[in-house]
Amino acid sequence: MPQLRKDPIIGRWVIISTERAKRPCDFKPVQSGPVEGECPFCEGKEDHTPQEIFAIRKEGSSPNKPGWKVRVVSSIAPFLRLDTELWRKGIGLYDLIGARGSHEVVIETPQHIANMCDLEVSQIEDVLTAYVERINSLSKDDKIKYVLIFKNYGWEAGGGRVKHSRSQIIATPVNLKRVKEELEGSKRYYDYHERCVFCDIIREELDLGERVVLDRDGILAVVPFAPRFPFEVWIFPKKHSPDFYKLTPEEKKNLASVLKEILSRIKNLLNDPPYNYVIHTAPFRREHRGYWTTIEEDYHWHIEIIPRLTRVAGFEWGTGFYICPTPPEEAAKYLRGDK
Amino acid sequence: MPQLRKDPIIGRWVIISTERAKRPCDFKPVQSGPVEGECPFCEGKEDHTPQEIFAIRKEGSSPNKPGWKVRVVSSIAPFLRLDTELWRKGIGLYDLIGARGSHEVVIETPQHIANMCDLEVSQIEDVLTAYVERINSLSKDDKIKYVLIFKNYGWEAGGGRVKHSRSQIIATPVNLKRVKEELEGSKRYYDYHERCVFCDIIREELDLGERVVLDRDGILAVVPFAPRFPFEVWIFPKKHSPDFYKLTPEEKKNLASVLKEILSRIKNLLNDPPYNYVIHTAPFRREHRGYWTTIEEDYHWHIEIIPRLTRVAGFEWGTGFYICPTPPEEAAKYLRGDK
Repeated sequence: MPQLRKDPIIGRWVIISTERAKRPCDFKPVQSGPVEGECPFCEGKEDHTPQEIFAIRKEGSSPNKPGWKVRVVSSIAPFLRLDTELWRKGIGLYDLIGARGSHEVVIETPQHIANMCDLEVSQIEDVLTAYVERINSLSKDDKIKYVLIFKNYGWEAGGGRVKHSRSQIIATPVNLKRVKEELEGSKRYYDYHERCVFCDIIREELDLGERVVLDRDGILAVVPFAPRFPFEVWIFPKKHSPDFYKLTPEEKKNLASVLKEILSRIKNLLNDPPYNYVIHTAPFRREHRGYWTTIEEDYHWHIEIIPRLTRVAGFEWGTGFYICPTPPEEAAKYLRGDK
Repeated sequence: MPQLRKDPIIGRWVIISTERAKRPCDFKPVQSGPVEGECPFCEGKEDHTPQEIFAIRKEGSSPNKPGWKVRVVSSIAPFLRLDTELWRKGIGLYDLIGARGSHEVVIETPQHIANMCDLEVSQIEDVLTAYVERINSLSKDDKIKYVLIFKNYGWEAGGGRVKHSRSQIIATPVNLKRVKEELEGSKRYYDYHERCVFCDIIREELDLGERVVLDRDGILAVVPFAPRFPFEVWIFPKKHSPDFYKLTPEEKKNLASVLKEILSRIKNLLNDPPYNYVIHTAPFRREHRGYWTTIEEDYHWHIEIIPRLTRVAGFEWGTGFYICPTPPEEAAKYLRGDK
């Protein structure tokens, strides 16, 4: 059975999976995947995936049959499961817990389309609706602390062999390290300034303008001041909100449109690179934040998009210290399409 | 000029380099490199590299001429330089500083050998001597806070086009995030237990035995309890010491021998994968550690080796949360050569 184990020095949780490849020979890369007609995610192949957990469907269609627009199914090889008990244990100085949680796949289109940017805006809206519904539903399980939504597009970004647009949802029984760091950082900032650091970043970027990629209908896309990777883009709602899943219908529509536009520019201007995006949203079970601040006030959801143009070397792993070969001001200029 | 910029949310420093590739077309991968005879790192090609900073040479040979065993030169495209001024500046809410520091390449052998494990033990000892000498020398610059030593072997590990065994040294004017996290974690442990967490890990691993790969002459190699990657290996000196550069001659010899053995097993048992290693050592300018503990007592240098068998996807970037598909106990068994 998979386990969650904690590094005793820096406190990082790791999933140790036993249901996936493990022997050295299992790591051989097989890049070629099924072609259209054999793809398990296409309409008509519903029996090739686990049962659907959620779907947006045309009226009158039945679950696990054709007629859907977006489907959410369990991963074929989930490393976290809702039917696992959340035991907690210590072995000597080490901590481990049962891998209770969920690992789901959002199939974003019934057609065999690889890149999300090639979907219609309304289709991307449906994908965002699926995200919101799943977070809402998973938040009701009191053993789940966080729901992570991310996309791996293209082989080098971990996208797998099947070229059909999809994203993943992972619900975890622990708070993740990077999420904690963001929460601690935004609290520290708020404690001193009594302002949300993300709101301040938005104001600053709008004032300066040089790193803004797109500012449309309340949604702002910028290249961050200190990016880890060339052409990294962050998308924020300009109105303060800690929780992605509390998007209004109008915000959802506007976000879908900006997301399509940014992903299209990345595809067209950067030669269709692999990319990842991760939705950064506040955890459900709010920790005590002290006297001056609450997560409601100091945290601000956003999406981080990372085109995979460079390899990541040992230096970055060992230190959390990145070298970005493209100044963000130049990257933003390029992504704005300035001449 | 390159800059160091700080992410205002989580406090991560990033080098923004302007002297490296930056336009999208510059990221096209070119994997094929010079063959033997054209390699700029081979003996006889000393004029193809910047001037040497340090070398171990045969008696009577001259700097920047043949006759060396190990050479340290500046990187051709250094992103940190000792002749850069260490200015510090704020722009709105953002912090940035001048990229003062050093970026050096350790050429580990005069022969065209790709993998460090194929060097003689005495040659690896010379490489470790070069590391120690450079840390010692860079520590005298009072603007340098940390010296990071790492190796990228193979294309996917960031090893570059030239297949000649080498490692890199980066001296930084800031303390790195991951280093700070380790220092904070080990201090937290010491504050409660009044024992070094690394010494406790060593004791625990020796007691249990199941994750030990090699225990020889005071040097211990284990697969850590919560590895990020399959077949990750950490090497510790069993005797407590915070500073890698205070290695005794005997420890250096024993470490060279264990390093060769572990890297050879990774090559032979895992089909010569790309890998990275990073030396984790204490910073020079010790921060105040409070009443109960000092870095001398609570930190313990070690080497982390990461074979690159899996791709890293968006999930890991967004969260610091890793999925390791091989249980460390099985990885250790395999690397021990157990039947």
